[in-house]
Amino acid sequence: MKKLINDVGAVVDDMIDGLIRSVDGLSRIEGERVIVRRDLEAVRSAGQVALVSGGGSGHEPAHAGYVGAGMLTAAVCGDVFTSPSTDAVLAAIRAVGGPAGVLLIVKSYTGDRLNFGLAAEIARSEGIPVEMVVVADDVSLATGTSNAGRRGIAGTVLVHKVAGAAAAAGLPLDRVAALARRVGDGVGSMGVGLTACTVPAAGRPSFSLADDEIEFGLGIHGEAGVRRDRMQPVGALVSTVAERIFEDRGLLAGDRAVLLVNNLGATPAMEMAIVAGEAARAAEARGLCVERMWTGAFLTALDMAGFSLSALAVDDELLGYLDAPTTASAWPT
Amino acid sequence: MKKLINDVGAVVDDMIDGLIRSVDGLSRIEGERVIVRRDLEAVRSAGQVALVSGGGSGHEPAHAGYVGAGMLTAAVCGDVFTSPSTDAVLAAIRAVGGPAGVLLIVKSYTGDRLNFGLAAEIARSEGIPVEMVVVADDVSLATGTSNAGRRGIAGTVLVHKVAGAAAAAGLPLDRVAALARRVGDGVGSMGVGLTACTVPAAGRPSFSLADDEIEFGLGIHGEAGVRRDRMQPVGALVSTVAERIFEDRGLLAGDRAVLLVNNLGATPAMEMAIVAGEAARAAEARGLCVERMWTGAFLTALDMAGFSLSALAVDDELLGYLDAPTTASAWPT
Repeated sequence: MKKLINDVGAVVDDMIDGLIRSVDGLSRIEGERVIVRRDLEAVRSAGQVALVSGGGSGHEPAHAGYVGAGMLTAAVCGDVFTSPSTDAVLAAIRAVGGPAGVLLIVKSYTGDRLNFGLAAEIARSEGIPVEMVVVADDVSLATGTSNAGRRGIAGTVLVHKVAGAAAAAGLPLDRVAALARRVGDGVGSMGVGLTACTVPAAGRPSFSLADDEIEFGLGIHGEAGVRRDRMQPVGALVSTVAERIFEDRGLLAGDRAVLLVNNLGATPAMEMAIVAGEAARAAEARGLCVERMWTGAFLTALDMAGFSLSALAVDDELLGYLDAPTTASAWPT
Repeated sequence: MKKLINDVGAVVDDMIDGLIRSVDGLSRIEGERVIVRRDLEAVRSAGQVALVSGGGSGHEPAHAGYVGAGMLTAAVCGDVFTSPSTDAVLAAIRAVGGPAGVLLIVKSYTGDRLNFGLAAEIARSEGIPVEMVVVADDVSLATGTSNAGRRGIAGTVLVHKVAGAAAAAGLPLDRVAALARRVGDGVGSMGVGLTACTVPAAGRPSFSLADDEIEFGLGIHGEAGVRRDRMQPVGALVSTVAERIFEDRGLLAGDRAVLLVNNLGATPAMEMAIVAGEAARAAEARGLCVERMWTGAFLTALDMAGFSLSALAVDDELLGYLDAPTTASAWPT
């Protein structure tokens, strides 16, 4: 294992420290691995709904990179690939929660659902209005249109964006939560890994792939995918993934959609640009009208090489929120 | 070699295609690997100096990612790690050059200096005012304060930013060129590689490093560094690199400076955040006043894992240009 770290036990704290030094407008809640907007009081005094997300670390820039005006109010950082504690989530809710309430955006993993859910219960009992939206956008795990049992992956970032813009526009908690659910239900994502990733504390890759092997439909925690296959030209890879998503989400010719082309962690920029071109072509082949396409590292799995694609049907309302300004460092402008 | 590509011969064209599909406001000059601002006529009719940069591909987002209002007017993309032809550079100059003239920003490599230089001569003979600035910011190659024989690496992006903002502000060619030279002369950079990179057409890494080895002071074309060493905690690595830059560029306690923390291609976001934290600490240890720090992938070497650090002494004038707005997709906002 060769990583730019000081100590396997310090990676999360060192990452938070570096982020706060790099990005203007962020603060850390004393004693917690919680990053908040420095202008928190402005959110409160404007009576805006606060947004909290988070989960295990190792997915940078998710979620702390989305803290800023127009996106998240706070992000809770667990250990690498480990859900943050109920206490940490509660600390975030208490720090940001005013009378307008708090929306929790949670990726669908057992630990996250439990710990965010319990924190929400406690906060409600303290009088803070809290809603929770669980995102399960990974279409690789089950067929059909149900999201039951599915994982939350990069599509979660689109939930942050839309809900964040709605909150900044002054919408009340129930409407912000409804928009977040609409995006979470609508978005579909799927990944392709060229390599596994190495959790610092483990010191070696979570699985191994030969030089000509790839994994379709892998998660973001080093778990193997749902199908191992031979390496193929990127056009074929992207087309397979895109068709699966379009099919699952019912995206048909003439539909308006946005695409998120996500670097799983260690894919070079030249390859990401090539993936983006193929994603646009796959959407065209389906007859979709691609309203926006964003390419970059949005929600990663440490040093995994590969990409994920997310697609979301949109209308003017969603596009308006997706286009709204944000100061979050990891959202492309 | 496992890369997200279709064909080793098509990587540059596929990359350009993907970039133009992903990023609003870019066009390709028909038949050339030259990317220009789509609103080129606005630059001309405003009487602004046009900026052209480029070089071999494989350094994405450099340089096409810096095309946009407030930065470059055009970027010329050679083959991977290969200088673009004189004809391609000339096509870019002719496309963007008006009476206000054209500034060429060139990284110091023999092929680039020759081909951009010859294109400048021809364009001048056609009546287009052209100035050329050569950037040689890699402090690893020679001691002393002279830049002779040095290579141009990530610090070049700061030249794009300052010169681009000056051109957008309406400064004439000689003053834009003088500012570009001032930044090019002032900035110092140095890289550390954890892996080599693989040129698609070669199919295998340009050199090999053991699991506990790193290279200090490597270039951005897969050449080995100036010194091989044992892997160390990132704090020690960054401190070594930072001190070398600060020493070489004469940055002393109390000086105001900006830092560019650059991903060489395949470094995951968590590690880049940790590197950024260490870079800020190294600058503090030197007593510098860090006015701005940008972290991300700015000028890469395909799939090389590692980072480079760039430092530039600044005053209010340079900071103003660095802070000026730009629509370029790869400049962080």
